[in-house]
Amino acid sequence: MLILTRKDILQVFSMRDAIEADKEAFVLHTQGKAAVPLRINLDNEAKSGQIMFMPAYVGGRLNAGGVKMVSCFLGNREKGLPVIPATMAVIDGTTGLVSAILDGTTLTQLRTAAIAGAAADLLANADAARGALFGTGGQAPAQLEALMTARRLKEVRVYDALEGRAKDFAAQMKPLADKFGTELVPAETPKEAVSGADVITTVTTAAEPVFDAADVKPGCHITGVGSYTPDKRELPLELLRRASRVFVDNREAVLAEAGDFIIPMKQGLFSKDEIAGELGELILGRVEGRVGHDDVTVMKTVGFATLDVVAAAEIVGKARGAGVGTEIDL
Amino acid sequence: MLILTRKDILQVFSMRDAIEADKEAFVLHTQGKAAVPLRINLDNEAKSGQIMFMPAYVGGRLNAGGVKMVSCFLGNREKGLPVIPATMAVIDGTTGLVSAILDGTTLTQLRTAAIAGAAADLLANADAARGALFGTGGQAPAQLEALMTARRLKEVRVYDALEGRAKDFAAQMKPLADKFGTELVPAETPKEAVSGADVITTVTTAAEPVFDAADVKPGCHITGVGSYTPDKRELPLELLRRASRVFVDNREAVLAEAGDFIIPMKQGLFSKDEIAGELGELILGRVEGRVGHDDVTVMKTVGFATLDVVAAAEIVGKARGAGVGTEIDL
Repeated sequence: MLILTRKDILQVFSMRDAIEADKEAFVLHTQGKAAVPLRINLDNEAKSGQIMFMPAYVGGRLNAGGVKMVSCFLGNREKGLPVIPATMAVIDGTTGLVSAILDGTTLTQLRTAAIAGAAADLLANADAARGALFGTGGQAPAQLEALMTARRLKEVRVYDALEGRAKDFAAQMKPLADKFGTELVPAETPKEAVSGADVITTVTTAAEPVFDAADVKPGCHITGVGSYTPDKRELPLELLRRASRVFVDNREAVLAEAGDFIIPMKQGLFSKDEIAGELGELILGRVEGRVGHDDVTVMKTVGFATLDVVAAAEIVGKARGAGVGTEIDL
Repeated sequence: MLILTRKDILQVFSMRDAIEADKEAFVLHTQGKAAVPLRINLDNEAKSGQIMFMPAYVGGRLNAGGVKMVSCFLGNREKGLPVIPATMAVIDGTTGLVSAILDGTTLTQLRTAAIAGAAADLLANADAARGALFGTGGQAPAQLEALMTARRLKEVRVYDALEGRAKDFAAQMKPLADKFGTELVPAETPKEAVSGADVITTVTTAAEPVFDAADVKPGCHITGVGSYTPDKRELPLELLRRASRVFVDNREAVLAEAGDFIIPMKQGLFSKDEIAGELGELILGRVEGRVGHDDVTVMKTVGFATLDVVAAAEIVGKARGAGVGTEIDL
């Protein structure tokens, strides 16, 4: 059994690797190669936290199973512990043995950011030069890296509803942005962030849309990552209307969880038929993606366990190849 | 995160510890302190194996969650790998962090044998001196140890339907039996094993009852561990009739899985009302156990995930106390 820490994972698995792993996961999902039971949620007795299990098995070339153990304990913050700690177990599909245990927080950051990276890769214009990022929380650094990996961006404007946070984030992430030759610019208003952006990622916990669709430039691609509950949304309905193509990572999951669609659907203002397809269908050429340079495209993701199993199995393969990690025979 | 190998576990956790942990699990189960979702079973694509997840959370003094990842791959035998590999993850109920990863095979052996040990402890006569063990498979060594731990046995007769296996097992287990001052005697027939036995454990994969109830001595206690599917049974119906008290570890699980009850119930020959109670109810004094020295008592177990979480959490506590295991910070 191979144990992989955050450092081990980052040593062998780049954001580009994560984007390719996610694309593979989208394809395996669309091909029906993944079995993903419902997530199991167990409250602790004191009701101070929730323990969740996300099991899955993925066939095809991957042939691996796994379970992400992820918890939500708000009280962890004051203890100096992660509020959403996660650990991933990978199971070999040929022998049923647990082949690896990985830091699930790093895995989640990489695979979630890579969803937006893959979407930008597949849907943004090739000449996209300016990005925008909404939200500067725990997922934001990886999301920024995914944007810069997918497209050669001269500038990324960063917006956060809490004053000062965008500036702090831009300063903190400068060393990474410099490696990509990208300038980070804190934006004072949503409009300032959106104006002129060729590719946008929203990763907030907002309840209401975070920008005005009228400010979105023709040709822009937008990925919605945050606000993944039925009662919250980041994306304005007008954006869905303006978009020539609206994609999702997993049709069933998004329609069950994403307020961006569920809220306007309840109001009779959006129909699931307006979703062009899943990213897996796009990659497989079953549906058309961007057609014209001025098309506005949208992708909404809520994530699903197949992404964890595929990315984790790829990480394990690379780590074994590189001799990285701690091998323990139970 | 603490990693505990088989050697680590055996170093800090005795069969007596396992019996006490199982008793605690029975009580927590009966008190409704355990949340145990249905086991998740995922076939691999080649249909050559099954990957299973057994999650649970246990409150009370324990306040711990966990998931046992257990697979069944028959082809592993020829690869020199375990056919039923298992790994256990323990989750801290105060922080939601994965606190430990344990060898699940050793955990399963200990906690399963300790079920029968606890039953013998609670139901066999205090002066029990002769034991019998049916079955010499992978679970048998721990089951033998549990019998010898629960009662001071002068002799244990061992029976296996496959010729020669009882003899081999007796020879192999002699060093352990010697430590308990117990003589192991291979029996030629079921009758020879049962006759005069004060306490019996059956741990076979038999489809039909493995002995004749008429051969059972007054005062005997019998625990049925094997044949845990609805279409198989080890215990004769006549034994259930002869028994003054029939116990189970988990009423719901046994009635869903144990052919020992399900087969005669389908024939209208046994009613669930004939079950005296769960071991947890017995320990809590809610139901009566053995009354007379000549009572025949029966306990049937199919096991449940609460036992894994409780035993694993106790192992982790003891290992931390003793400084045993490998600590890795992910």
